[in-house]
Amino acid sequence: MPVGTLGTVKAVPQDVLESLGAEIILGNTYHLYLRPGHEPIRRMGGLHKFISWPRGLLTDSGGFQVFSLAQLRKVTDDGVRFQSHLDGSRHFFTPEHSIDVQIALGADILMAFDECTEYPADRARAEDSLRLTLAWAERSLNHFRAHCHEVPWFEEFRVPLVPRTWGPGNEPQRQSLFGIVQGGMYRDLRRESAERLIEMDFDGYAIGGLSVGEPRDLTLEMISEVLPLLPADKPRYVMGVGYPDEIEQYARLGVDMMDCVLPTRAARHGLLFTSEGRINIKGKKYAEDQGPLDPECRCPVCSRYTRAYLRHLMHSGEALSGALNSIHNLAYYLGIMERVRGSLAAQQG
Amino acid sequence: MPVGTLGTVKAVPQDVLESLGAEIILGNTYHLYLRPGHEPIRRMGGLHKFISWPRGLLTDSGGFQVFSLAQLRKVTDDGVRFQSHLDGSRHFFTPEHSIDVQIALGADILMAFDECTEYPADRARAEDSLRLTLAWAERSLNHFRAHCHEVPWFEEFRVPLVPRTWGPGNEPQRQSLFGIVQGGMYRDLRRESAERLIEMDFDGYAIGGLSVGEPRDLTLEMISEVLPLLPADKPRYVMGVGYPDEIEQYARLGVDMMDCVLPTRAARHGLLFTSEGRINIKGKKYAEDQGPLDPECRCPVCSRYTRAYLRHLMHSGEALSGALNSIHNLAYYLGIMERVRGSLAAQQG
Repeated sequence: MPVGTLGTVKAVPQDVLESLGAEIILGNTYHLYLRPGHEPIRRMGGLHKFISWPRGLLTDSGGFQVFSLAQLRKVTDDGVRFQSHLDGSRHFFTPEHSIDVQIALGADILMAFDECTEYPADRARAEDSLRLTLAWAERSLNHFRAHCHEVPWFEEFRVPLVPRTWGPGNEPQRQSLFGIVQGGMYRDLRRESAERLIEMDFDGYAIGGLSVGEPRDLTLEMISEVLPLLPADKPRYVMGVGYPDEIEQYARLGVDMMDCVLPTRAARHGLLFTSEGRINIKGKKYAEDQGPLDPECRCPVCSRYTRAYLRHLMHSGEALSGALNSIHNLAYYLGIMERVRGSLAAQQG
Repeated sequence: MPVGTLGTVKAVPQDVLESLGAEIILGNTYHLYLRPGHEPIRRMGGLHKFISWPRGLLTDSGGFQVFSLAQLRKVTDDGVRFQSHLDGSRHFFTPEHSIDVQIALGADILMAFDECTEYPADRARAEDSLRLTLAWAERSLNHFRAHCHEVPWFEEFRVPLVPRTWGPGNEPQRQSLFGIVQGGMYRDLRRESAERLIEMDFDGYAIGGLSVGEPRDLTLEMISEVLPLLPADKPRYVMGVGYPDEIEQYARLGVDMMDCVLPTRAARHGLLFTSEGRINIKGKKYAEDQGPLDPECRCPVCSRYTRAYLRHLMHSGEALSGALNSIHNLAYYLGIMERVRGSLAAQQG
């Protein structure tokens, strides 16, 4: 899933995302809550309509950004008090409030409010954090079930949603809520987290609290521990990963969804992923390289422009640089998922 | 003509420019000479191929930027010595060198090297400046005629040029050179300038040294003085103008070509031109405006996005803002020219 923090996948227009085959993008609840605000978005018919995106949308709970961006945080059992990183204004997020904001945004998939356990965290801290996340998960789910049908603005949608290929079918429920497995780097806590969430019966399950600085074999260990426990008939989502080889590895293990700012953020810094490995397009050696960025890629950038031109745009600080680089990296990531899907389908067929 | 300073119309990809109907874009010789350099561009097959632009290209002479951007300028009859605004490196531009650089860049239309007379300029200064520009025009033309066929890299073009709808026909000459009328704000100097250039027999004629701070009725006076003198069977180009109503006014007077950074530069600052007048999209009053930017516009931006979304992108400093705003403003400008062409054709038909 390309990440569209503030209602835009940075520098990439919606029609291009469609043409690249992006089926779902992610919006950050924390950012959209602060700017332009969930109430204006609700009044305007929800995020799909506001940003003109007729396909899938997922919103995170806001928790991750509250913990990573906001200032003067104070966590209680009830929720998190924080100040905006933009203007210092004071806010209070509870599981109920996060769900209210996400219902107002109107995404297809909502995430339970959780605490992303930091790394490293000792066992006592990881246990406390998990206990909080599980309590918040239950409160998120209860509030969601009580309020998810109260979406009057939904009727005003002018853009049709994509058919749910993985959802629970033709139910009247128009939004789904996922629970988030936490537990730090402790396998038994991860198992406990998964089991408790499955008892609550969410529409899908995410594995959070990974890619937070831990070594990569630990990431894999946690995913391998949790994944087999999660129901195979519901979407399984690993949050915030990763590099192309990670994406491929986890997808082959059975992960259905991943999100990461890496393809777009790296692109803006000139780091491009290709079938021939990573390229830093700023390099002088590309100054007269008339080949395409990736000879095996059929994206609009590789089909039209040379490495020399992309290098020139980057070197000159041109706005087009971020756009073209991002388009290629997203195409590369979406291509990985398509390839894995094809290969898994072939195995099963 | 959209202005593509450094081989990119800022923030707008080439395929979008094509879809908007842009038939020709402008590249700045000064900028491209400094970065990435005309020799690399020549080696890579010229600017068309380097930036993947299969339609018309015009390069200016570099003179205007030397006079407006470069440091420590010293003008002699021979040329201009200056230091790069990027790194302070020393350079010397003569009419011959400007033409050499432009031949290397390989645009369809080249401009004679001129001195853009500043405003205000007293009569003695305007006379001196004109004398210099006329001498440089002749040197530009002689050098161009002697060297314009020496474009071996031209054979390597992979993108076909647009058919010349206004050129001198099926001649083997693949590039055209335009002379530039100067003369400050003195009608007789302007006439003298035009007459002398016409004697030299350029492929087209530009009126330069306008929109440099003079009142607008003076701009119009100079254009009205010069335009009737210029051969109607060759392109007539007014450089560096202007606001939408100016564009329309001059086009109706018979001006065939204009260029200006205004539509793209204003767009990046949130100033948008619409059939309902100018809009500063940063305004709070657009925060929940769900109408299209311009209800009469059929550009990709007005067809898909609301004013509220464009305002949100601008307000949040998102990269997509500059791109979408620029696309609309260019569509608006190109629409003016299309409308005037249609109305002139109807009058003649």
